[in-house]
Amino acid sequence: ELVTRLAGVFAEPVLAGRRVLLTAGPTREPLDPVRYITNRSSGKMGFALAAVAAAAGAEVTLVAGPCALPTPAGVHRIDVETAEQMYAEVQRHVAGQDVFIGCAAVADYRPAEAVAGKIKRSGADLKLHLVPNPDILAAVAARAEDRPFTVGFAAETDRVLEHASDKRRRKGLDLIAANRVGPGLGFDTDDNQLELIWDGGHRQLGPGPKSALAAELITQIAQCLQDDKPEGAAS
Amino acid sequence: ELVTRLAGVFAEPVLAGRRVLLTAGPTREPLDPVRYITNRSSGKMGFALAAVAAAAGAEVTLVAGPCALPTPAGVHRIDVETAEQMYAEVQRHVAGQDVFIGCAAVADYRPAEAVAGKIKRSGADLKLHLVPNPDILAAVAARAEDRPFTVGFAAETDRVLEHASDKRRRKGLDLIAANRVGPGLGFDTDDNQLELIWDGGHRQLGPGPKSALAAELITQIAQCLQDDKPEGAAS
Repeated sequence: ELVTRLAGVFAEPVLAGRRVLLTAGPTREPLDPVRYITNRSSGKMGFALAAVAAAAGAEVTLVAGPCALPTPAGVHRIDVETAEQMYAEVQRHVAGQDVFIGCAAVADYRPAEAVAGKIKRSGADLKLHLVPNPDILAAVAARAEDRPFTVGFAAETDRVLEHASDKRRRKGLDLIAANRVGPGLGFDTDDNQLELIWDGGHRQLGPGPKSALAAELITQIAQCLQDDKPEGAAS
Repeated sequence: ELVTRLAGVFAEPVLAGRRVLLTAGPTREPLDPVRYITNRSSGKMGFALAAVAAAAGAEVTLVAGPCALPTPAGVHRIDVETAEQMYAEVQRHVAGQDVFIGCAAVADYRPAEAVAGKIKRSGADLKLHLVPNPDILAAVAARAEDRPFTVGFAAETDRVLEHASDKRRRKGLDLIAANRVGPGLGFDTDDNQLELIWDGGHRQLGPGPKSALAAELITQIAQCLQDDKPEGAAS
């Protein structure tokens, strides 16, 4: 439906012959068989990007955390639950990709150990020991060879541009899309506003529906790929 | 739709003139503006019970944690997010209720303090300080006067009957409905199996669809109310 609606957006299929790998949605980090840590990501932005990339002619693989969204037409979807599972699937599929878009809100931390039985209530306080999850985006950006054009997202509550620029440098990303989150903004909503930062420039998208922003972002990525390897140039 | 389908289940409106207060769904305990602790409850069982209670003639108030389910016809719904909000709404509405059904999977613990800005990733481990949430079910069961017939649920991963009987005694419940949870069982599924334990007896419901179990459970509750205060007896 989205793909059909967006098919006319691209006068030409700007990603024809390109392979795009995306992550989307939240991850769930289990505390015990029933409890988990997660976040407010709905997966809407990542699914919109996958749909648009497919409409732009790309071969699209989407690694999705738990979210109740339909798979966009023509997209190969792989469902995962935890950050470690998402990391493993990205590692498995990243070779040969032209573009990687890390749109998932991956949990930075997981419980040091998930308890097999349900944690029982007691009157006392509880200390939870959390350990860092693998950094999926940084791992892709750090590939020595066969490295895709790597795009990350930054959800920030304050000093958005500054934090996002730092993150882009620190993780070695080609392009970062930053947005402000907070009550009623960014997460689990249909509208969004993004600041794009890449080597060659800086641009604001929106505010507008996530599907419209997705089309603009995919267009910008296609432009960056074109600039990277101009037609006729040796690569 | 469920109410219409179930309207025929009750030859007579077994809860006519009764007031029923329920909780349903999970709660979310924020770690920061984007992250939270929650659990796998879908809210299906609580919403089915609310629908059935309304179909059985009761005046129904449903305090619901975050779940994407439609409000059953004739049910007064109050949406909350955290355990503390759910506790406050139950306290506000419990006076004058004939039945309280605590079906929500209330988080036993919440972070000692929610961080105002987003927690930044660092390489180091993290210690999370959790404190106990108020016990909604026990608070209702412990009311000195104007105490409703109090029904609780027990989601157990092992020794289901033993743990559930303990919980019923410890919290002072009139009836407990116990089910086994684990991979593919109980949470976020359409089917369920319950063990009912009350003062006068013990009974297994299902396995079967949650809507069918809900009808049987409401019938059992109506029977218990009837036995409590037989027609013509002084109360």
